[in-house]
Amino acid sequence: MAEEHVVYVGNKPVMNYVLAALTQFNEGASEVVIKARGKAISRAVDVAEIVRNRFMPNVTVKSINIDTEELDSEGRRVNVSTIEIALEKQAS
Amino acid sequence: MAEEHVVYVGNKPVMNYVLAALTQFNEGASEVVIKARGKAISRAVDVAEIVRNRFMPNVTVKSINIDTEELDSEGRRVNVSTIEIALEKQAS
Repeated sequence: MAEEHVVYVGNKPVMNYVLAALTQFNEGASEVVIKARGKAISRAVDVAEIVRNRFMPNVTVKSINIDTEELDSEGRRVNVSTIEIALEKQAS
Repeated sequence: MAEEHVVYVGNKPVMNYVLAALTQFNEGASEVVIKARGKAISRAVDVAEIVRNRFMPNVTVKSINIDTEELDSEGRRVNVSTIEIALEKQAS
């Protein structure tokens, strides 16, 4: 299976993740998946939108998947939403 | 064009919006679109996941679209991300 290029979005400034995605595309990746959980989901959407609107017009959204993960939080089972946004570089 | 059933997600508790979506499905809607902007995007994903995992297993995610809107904020043009999650009730 082709190596998956992933950017995990957390709580750092959004441009950190934009830069990470741009770097992976510039190093030859044709697809980069932006992944996030919980409150960072909004930032993941920002990252995808900034990458394709401001930096790489030839990148499109290939797919978006949402799901739920069960986490252990201080001994309690907690559900948290997740998102995966697959960005694909169109051959120019 | 068939009437569009929409739930706009803001800053209220997530269950407010879950209830709104369930109400529209119970009133006969076969499709409900969850819409949100900015930081409320994470909550919109929570709403979609709670509706289909906890209350309506026969509801699936039909499509997810992300985009960017330009807003006026105190005289400045600001970009904000948006999401639209279309939930569809499968004929049982």
